[in-house]
Amino acid sequence: MALVVIGGVAAGLSAASRARRTDPRLDIVVLEKGPVISYGACGLPYYVEGRVRDIGQLIVYTPEYFRKERRIDVRTGARVVSIAHPRREVVLESGERIRYESLVIATGARPDALGIAGARQPHVFTLHTLEDAERLRSFIREKQAKRGVVIGAGYIGVEAADALRRNGLAVTVLERSPDALLRHDPMLTAAVRHQLEEHGVDLRCGVSVTAIEPDSVAGVPCDVVVLSGGFRPNVEIAAEAGIELGKSGAIRTDDRMETNLRGVYAAGDCAEVNHIVTNRPAYIPLGTTANKAGRVAGANAAGGRERFAGIVGTSIVGIFGVGFATTGFSVEQARAEGFAPVAARVEANTRPRYYGGTKTTVELVADRTTGRLIGGTVIGEDGAVGRINVIATALQARMRLAEFEQLDLAYSPPFSATWDPLLIAAQQLQKEM
Amino acid sequence: MALVVIGGVAAGLSAASRARRTDPRLDIVVLEKGPVISYGACGLPYYVEGRVRDIGQLIVYTPEYFRKERRIDVRTGARVVSIAHPRREVVLESGERIRYESLVIATGARPDALGIAGARQPHVFTLHTLEDAERLRSFIREKQAKRGVVIGAGYIGVEAADALRRNGLAVTVLERSPDALLRHDPMLTAAVRHQLEEHGVDLRCGVSVTAIEPDSVAGVPCDVVVLSGGFRPNVEIAAEAGIELGKSGAIRTDDRMETNLRGVYAAGDCAEVNHIVTNRPAYIPLGTTANKAGRVAGANAAGGRERFAGIVGTSIVGIFGVGFATTGFSVEQARAEGFAPVAARVEANTRPRYYGGTKTTVELVADRTTGRLIGGTVIGEDGAVGRINVIATALQARMRLAEFEQLDLAYSPPFSATWDPLLIAAQQLQKEM
Repeated sequence: MALVVIGGVAAGLSAASRARRTDPRLDIVVLEKGPVISYGACGLPYYVEGRVRDIGQLIVYTPEYFRKERRIDVRTGARVVSIAHPRREVVLESGERIRYESLVIATGARPDALGIAGARQPHVFTLHTLEDAERLRSFIREKQAKRGVVIGAGYIGVEAADALRRNGLAVTVLERSPDALLRHDPMLTAAVRHQLEEHGVDLRCGVSVTAIEPDSVAGVPCDVVVLSGGFRPNVEIAAEAGIELGKSGAIRTDDRMETNLRGVYAAGDCAEVNHIVTNRPAYIPLGTTANKAGRVAGANAAGGRERFAGIVGTSIVGIFGVGFATTGFSVEQARAEGFAPVAARVEANTRPRYYGGTKTTVELVADRTTGRLIGGTVIGEDGAVGRINVIATALQARMRLAEFEQLDLAYSPPFSATWDPLLIAAQQLQKEM
Repeated sequence: MALVVIGGVAAGLSAASRARRTDPRLDIVVLEKGPVISYGACGLPYYVEGRVRDIGQLIVYTPEYFRKERRIDVRTGARVVSIAHPRREVVLESGERIRYESLVIATGARPDALGIAGARQPHVFTLHTLEDAERLRSFIREKQAKRGVVIGAGYIGVEAADALRRNGLAVTVLERSPDALLRHDPMLTAAVRHQLEEHGVDLRCGVSVTAIEPDSVAGVPCDVVVLSGGFRPNVEIAAEAGIELGKSGAIRTDDRMETNLRGVYAAGDCAEVNHIVTNRPAYIPLGTTANKAGRVAGANAAGGRERFAGIVGTSIVGIFGVGFATTGFSVEQARAEGFAPVAARVEANTRPRYYGGTKTTVELVADRTTGRLIGGTVIGEDGAVGRINVIATALQARMRLAEFEQLDLAYSPPFSATWDPLLIAAQQLQKEM
């Protein structure tokens, strides 16, 4: 029995590791096209910022580790150019063919250049690989860059804006859609804009960039550009092999992370997963999902029988010290998904004032038809991650607002408020239902 | 229609406020035996510590506020001595009788003196009312107290120990049971002991104090004593009126917070509530529960129809900056409740090391028979409250470990780890199942 895994970052390595646990005797090969494996892409903005001094801090495991500790053959610089499924072979760029009995496709995604002209100039960067981050940091320092433009106000876009600003640059973020953070939610976008502006970063939404000039973008002068216009799943070799894609363009999978080809699994930024709130496929490429879905793919590829329930779309991003966290759907998104959304937003203290509490914003969204909670947003310096995780847990449990309103949350003055902002928001929403 | 509420702190005022919303025309009278209403008893240790400078900071609302803003007649110094239910009257100490159509009993609890001789000496304090805290703080300062003994290692006991220590006293905590924090859990007790000792506080468990000497307790010399040996529900007038008590000795209620007498409700530290994990009555007096159960009692007493699902037993206490948080049951408690508990404990990073993550301890307890999660403990400086709240939400949703293991929790380096310690603990526990 042999398992081949294409891709050596989050999903691929989770799959390989889990497969090893599932079957101690399985031959496992991981083929990574890049020079390193297992790097924390989410840490790249902090390397650019300077907080992470050595890029090596972002590498979690080495191929040697996998070889020795887990008996997994990890090869870097090994680019797969095609999958010959009838022969159960993958073909490397070198011409080498490797046989598999089961296959996990974890080819990830690549930055979307959005068809922008001039994207290959030396002052234009993406922030996807370690090399990208190293090049960007060196460029800023060596060229003493003064003005940066970030194209795209998704997570990486705002993190890049934060990092550039902390390096002293004047920064403008240009976003094609009306919204920041990939979420159709005017309140959230307004809050992001406010926080960016407070720290001297200009956010312009509804600006469609078609070309990058040598010294400006859409009329904004700049000497460095970060392109963070989202990701496109790397699905070409899968599609050519007859693997079905979903509506999103990413690989369609079932709840075992298996594709339409038996024995071929997919996970991570190249694949769709089930969205628990809608029970429909979704494409939300995040490292946490890659890890979890990768584990399930690996277990099943090694003969196990596990299922991945799916995601609820939880994320958090820090902008100049404030957490912007979301899960499930905004009102606008929920309506587009066919729900009858009702929302309430509150601003409340995270702790008693005598214990240094600060204000946090909580918005909850419920479905009027079923009474179920279907989304939430938390914005604040104190405890945003914990609060969004509570909402996410409730979404995953398909909890109704009436239950959520009575959650038995922990209280003690150093940590929280008698009525947690989550419960205040729930009470407020209950009145609207 | 007239509603009488006995007790003007958490449950009583929540009930009255909610009754007002439910029925804008209802006559509502709140009878509070003490001199103030609506005070944050959980803040008392921080007044003793000195962090809260003015005791007035702990008073949230005044009777005037309730009179003007909510048209609720709140009377202080109004002690109810009996309930004449056949006549629908409460009798005050003054002899005055007040008629009710519905009644909410929110008489709270009182510190349990545990039958200890010498508990009424001037150097012996409880920490229950504002006056208690003022007297204790004055005593420490005026007498320049050097050595304190705290009797009882529950929440208030450890908070009092922390507060005394920060005032420079040598502190010993004496606990009758083998366990700290009212939870039969050797791991938790060991962690509490370690943290107390790190900060110069001695914890001795299994010490049954029968008498307080003028200058020592159980052989430990001291010049001030804090008695925090738990609480006894104030149920005497209810019991005399024919209201049934539960096994715990607190007032038995149904899920509408109604007692065995129609139209008579009870909530807060005098009443039992449903424990969602066992679906049996429990007595765990906490302000958060008082608020929530009080709301339900008030709504129903005013003609509404609400139910209180119950609690899962969530709490957190800070000991010298570290949060000790628990929910549901420990292994030992779970076994006593008839479960087949399996547990796993991990110590993991709360964030990537380059982003200042610290170690946190997470223990999860599941029931082997049903696969359900039934308890958890989180100990740490960073995010303990958020993590215990996630576990609490899962308990409330009766979530199985297999689901919990796949929770879609938020990740970003400034806030969390790719694999949250909760998920690492869940994976570990899954292996044990």
